[in-house]
Amino acid sequence: MITSTANPTIKLIRKLHEKKERLQTGLFYIEGLRIVIEALQQGAEVECLVVAPDLLTSEFGWQRVEEENRRGLQVSQGVFTSLASKQNPQGIAAVVRQRWQDASSLRLASQDLWVALDSVADPGNLGTILRTNDAVGGKGVILLDNSTDPYDLTTIRASMGAIFSQGLVKTTFEQFLQWKQDHDYALIGTSDRASADYCQASYPLPMILLMGSERLGLSEEHMRACDQLVSIPMVGRSDSLNLAVAAGLMLYEIFNQQRERSGQHGSEKQRKG
Amino acid sequence: MITSTANPTIKLIRKLHEKKERLQTGLFYIEGLRIVIEALQQGAEVECLVVAPDLLTSEFGWQRVEEENRRGLQVSQGVFTSLASKQNPQGIAAVVRQRWQDASSLRLASQDLWVALDSVADPGNLGTILRTNDAVGGKGVILLDNSTDPYDLTTIRASMGAIFSQGLVKTTFEQFLQWKQDHDYALIGTSDRASADYCQASYPLPMILLMGSERLGLSEEHMRACDQLVSIPMVGRSDSLNLAVAAGLMLYEIFNQQRERSGQHGSEKQRKG
Repeated sequence: MITSTANPTIKLIRKLHEKKERLQTGLFYIEGLRIVIEALQQGAEVECLVVAPDLLTSEFGWQRVEEENRRGLQVSQGVFTSLASKQNPQGIAAVVRQRWQDASSLRLASQDLWVALDSVADPGNLGTILRTNDAVGGKGVILLDNSTDPYDLTTIRASMGAIFSQGLVKTTFEQFLQWKQDHDYALIGTSDRASADYCQASYPLPMILLMGSERLGLSEEHMRACDQLVSIPMVGRSDSLNLAVAAGLMLYEIFNQQRERSGQHGSEKQRKG
Repeated sequence: MITSTANPTIKLIRKLHEKKERLQTGLFYIEGLRIVIEALQQGAEVECLVVAPDLLTSEFGWQRVEEENRRGLQVSQGVFTSLASKQNPQGIAAVVRQRWQDASSLRLASQDLWVALDSVADPGNLGTILRTNDAVGGKGVILLDNSTDPYDLTTIRASMGAIFSQGLVKTTFEQFLQWKQDHDYALIGTSDRASADYCQASYPLPMILLMGSERLGLSEEHMRACDQLVSIPMVGRSDSLNLAVAAGLMLYEIFNQQRERSGQHGSEKQRKG
């Protein structure tokens, strides 16, 4: 059992709270029973489990730890607390390998839906968008230019496990545009300046939904790259919605139209009647 | 100019970061140029402006401060920083009186839409719901039982000013139910166990949308109180959406149906064609 917070491995793990270190190592850190179990269940590449026997009280947790024993690292309560980002930690954490898809070799199947985010800044928004995209059967998220790191703990928590199931691609807008043009994929963006109502447009799959950053929305250049621009109407005092809410509205409109086409919508109606 | 962080007024203002103190005084604290201007523009009851001349560089900010001079409190940079929750503060803050509507005397007009939240826990979610409800023309939010304090800085920031325009009511579920029954208002709730698809239901105004807490959703008791229960379909791995996203989907479905009924939707369609 590791009892020193200065242990070199512990120091390396602690550094994974920093974006720079995650970038360099290609690893990330997760903590809590639920998220660690999610990672294992979804076949994430868990490099190492970190367990504090004094803190881990869940029987189910212990069962899983024993199954994964070869990768376990036992640490004292003090060492675990020095790693944990939350108070009252559950005594289980893991170091996991990041999983990125290559931008240029990505191909969309006929029913695929992806979200491209330009310079998304808020880790919670990114996690929530991953969660919603998973809910509508979307395949993944393409992070353009200066987007926040999806392997930040806040993003991971907000994604509720979708961080392990959603595809992740990181690229520049320029390369993204070239790729979109090469494969003639449909790109649909949202802008408060668009005249088309998001409920009136139709969304053929495969497609990529492009959303701008929280602060600036889509730039002129981004808007020009879109095959279609739609707006979400608002009658209140404010001129914008929260990014994760706007993305949720778009994703569900696309999903609802798809359900309608495939008749799932209709059958719901009949079941009701 | 106040230069001591131990000044009694400054100590009182600093305490407003705590929920308990906000509850006792009926006041709250906001900081940053944008939000303070919002408060003034929307006629919030600003008790006192707090200005650090060394930090406030915005000319527009100074203009507004001069207009509101009688309520100004000048403080040193050090004092301001001791109050501020953010790094690099803009040198302007305010103490504002909370504005609650009385639960029992609340009456809904024919087109009114309210959201009732049971034990909402996340300040960011509450702020985002206020923001979305403002966007669809909703009137306000009814906070049931152990809901988080809307006058928390995180909620205020996430609301993007809607904290000043939306009605706020705080009550128990029991009293809420009595009030709903007395006035025969329609209450519609969401639950993953409901068989009706949220897109297939129809939402007559006035109505109250009831959403459960992040962790537990609606209880049996809450569901029984609803006139109608709907579910938001999901095909992914997870069994729930983020609360603010789910509320956004419901609010926009209600808003879209209302637009359709009033013909605004149709005219959008014609404009497109």
